[in-house]
Amino acid sequence: MSVTLERIETAPFGAATHLVCRACGAHAKLGADYSCWECFGPLEVAYEFGTVTREQIQSGPFSLWRYAPLLPVPANIAESRNLAPGMTRLHRADNLAKALGITGTLWVKDDSGNPTHSFKDRVVAVAQSAGIQLGFNTLACASTGNLAHAVAAAAARAGQKSVVLVPSNLEQHKIQATAAYNGHVIGIEGNYDDVNRLCGELIGEEVSSNWGFVNVNLRPYYAEGSKTVGYEIAEQLGWRLPDQVVIPVASGALLTKVDKGWREFVQLGLVEDRPWRVFGAQATGCNPVSTAWSQGNDVVRPVKPDTIAKSLAIGNPADGPYALDAVRRTNGAVGDVTDAEVIEGIRLLAECEGIFGETSGGVTVAVTRKLLAEGLLDPTAETVIVNTGEGLKTLDAVATGNGFSATISPNVESVAKVIEGA
Amino acid sequence: MSVTLERIETAPFGAATHLVCRACGAHAKLGADYSCWECFGPLEVAYEFGTVTREQIQSGPFSLWRYAPLLPVPANIAESRNLAPGMTRLHRADNLAKALGITGTLWVKDDSGNPTHSFKDRVVAVAQSAGIQLGFNTLACASTGNLAHAVAAAAARAGQKSVVLVPSNLEQHKIQATAAYNGHVIGIEGNYDDVNRLCGELIGEEVSSNWGFVNVNLRPYYAEGSKTVGYEIAEQLGWRLPDQVVIPVASGALLTKVDKGWREFVQLGLVEDRPWRVFGAQATGCNPVSTAWSQGNDVVRPVKPDTIAKSLAIGNPADGPYALDAVRRTNGAVGDVTDAEVIEGIRLLAECEGIFGETSGGVTVAVTRKLLAEGLLDPTAETVIVNTGEGLKTLDAVATGNGFSATISPNVESVAKVIEGA
Repeated sequence: MSVTLERIETAPFGAATHLVCRACGAHAKLGADYSCWECFGPLEVAYEFGTVTREQIQSGPFSLWRYAPLLPVPANIAESRNLAPGMTRLHRADNLAKALGITGTLWVKDDSGNPTHSFKDRVVAVAQSAGIQLGFNTLACASTGNLAHAVAAAAARAGQKSVVLVPSNLEQHKIQATAAYNGHVIGIEGNYDDVNRLCGELIGEEVSSNWGFVNVNLRPYYAEGSKTVGYEIAEQLGWRLPDQVVIPVASGALLTKVDKGWREFVQLGLVEDRPWRVFGAQATGCNPVSTAWSQGNDVVRPVKPDTIAKSLAIGNPADGPYALDAVRRTNGAVGDVTDAEVIEGIRLLAECEGIFGETSGGVTVAVTRKLLAEGLLDPTAETVIVNTGEGLKTLDAVATGNGFSATISPNVESVAKVIEGA
Repeated sequence: MSVTLERIETAPFGAATHLVCRACGAHAKLGADYSCWECFGPLEVAYEFGTVTREQIQSGPFSLWRYAPLLPVPANIAESRNLAPGMTRLHRADNLAKALGITGTLWVKDDSGNPTHSFKDRVVAVAQSAGIQLGFNTLACASTGNLAHAVAAAAARAGQKSVVLVPSNLEQHKIQATAAYNGHVIGIEGNYDDVNRLCGELIGEEVSSNWGFVNVNLRPYYAEGSKTVGYEIAEQLGWRLPDQVVIPVASGALLTKVDKGWREFVQLGLVEDRPWRVFGAQATGCNPVSTAWSQGNDVVRPVKPDTIAKSLAIGNPADGPYALDAVRRTNGAVGDVTDAEVIEGIRLLAECEGIFGETSGGVTVAVTRKLLAEGLLDPTAETVIVNTGEGLKTLDAVATGNGFSATISPNVESVAKVIEGA
């Protein structure tokens, strides 16, 4: 089963004009490049936005493609065969606020509502478009699980092949779900940083010459997809920015791009300019950005991950320094929590709000609690926390026994005993 | 953690006026009743709709609450603390159409995008509202899994208690996910029909006097939630009805209510009146409605379920006869498929469209293929199939080995070997 992938000759990358090095500012043309030819710094997409209005966005599709004018994608992207992620629910979280001692308004941006139930559908959708425009016929990635799932699904829907490379010790739920789409799911003996290094080595090799690695050679486009989390929060709050946001940190790209998205909204006059604070959340078992923040370092020193929060287990985060920049510039902070606290965080979110997040969601809730206790988050301010994934994918983290309160015979007396004994 | 549940004195059930017996037509007032005092027939909600316009609906929230004027809920329901399900994606499915030999347009209504990833969030949301208005403080249900998950989550979000009763042999994924919300999850030694019978016995008992069973004493309200699947399909198609729809059948309520929703849309002038055909899908291991249809019976004879499609494993379906009515009136059909075909169906949907459905989704795809082969479905017509749940909840059905195509060392040569050997 395959489809003709359409390449668009006019403005295949929308308002994007070139790539720019985030380290030295050198320019490169829009292509499958991810590091600067001058200094090896990371490349980012640059744009010349025209006028973009709230009305224009609101009249677009109910997906991340309503923000197409702000992404490196063709204007008619919504008509192509893709999973149309985005516009996930922003829930007001009064029960959780009370449990955490937050007196300001608390919101949960729940990205488990995406097609494969993590925010990765967003970045894959943008990278997939760029890959098609650049002539790749296979969608590939290095992944800690959620990205693999998103890539395999997006490729299937577009009629593309997929190859995902993941650490072989990943959660079985994520692997088996990814395998359902019938792409290549390759387990690598090593951790995520080993997998990532391998993908870098594959660039330019014959076996992978037609592969667009969403988070390697398509990374500049990919990362832009994360801006839409920020855009949506602002639009869903009624075109305004919150006081504080708490975001889980793996590579650091999501945090960096939410902040970038808000700066763009301000620049375009879509929201009022006002100060906001960006907070990062990591697991103690993989806390390179948190450590750098608390020690006041500019350099993020790599660590060897050891945590149940495998979707955040990137020991050498590509965007770590930029995440630190955003946190420091906005007067935020980065915290980390133990695996036991992660599990408490998952349970608290589920019990209070009916949202069953994956381990990264538990990290975010638990770090929020910790930063409140440390006086770093303001309990009286309006706060948004981001749940990036789905608890069904990391069930083992919270599974206890067979899950039942009790197993009984089908009669009223047995039910009464369970309830009265509780 | 609890909240004050607000009861609304004015129009707590919106445009609903009374309950009406589907068998004898007797009336009852809006209350926690589910069977007729005259003849024990099932009760249904009756309304006096005013004028409802497309513009009114479109200006509502992006959830099932945009249809609040057509549901037994207060007008301001969207402001209450609930999970705001609905408005899931309707994907045009060209790859799957090609694989199935459908030359008309094929669409997949993907209800895995709901908060707990099945269509049950819709029915629970409506039943929860009714339960609050009727003074119940605990949300309860008999469930084959998805409903339990939806009830536990919805109760948590509203600050209610929950008690779910399920067969003790259910998929572990569904149980463990349901347990995360910290309600009572009680395993019953027996099948779904045993659990359902027990819930009927619990009505009026002291232990459960404050329990609103969403699918027992709140069933008339609950079932109305399924109409929104039909409403959304019509609205998402641009305010028109498709030629054919294929819907999985457990209790039969979803199929019946999609048809009812379309009749209401016609009656209200929201869509053009034109013929449509309704098709039902069951697993051969639990096919009472399919058997009755193929044998031309009006009576649906109960069966003992034995299928991997546990979410459809209702051997004595409450709405079976009404589902048969809708199928016969619209010139549709009901088919059933083996468990092996169910698994093929799941894989086909995932490979073609990037949508990983649960076993019930596999049933729907496989029955669609079968009904096409039998000449019962028209391959040239516009067809919608409904995926009611998420593959992550029934992973065991498709899990093979460890899920990896291969497990290798992190080097280019090993990758090349896997790809070239494939």
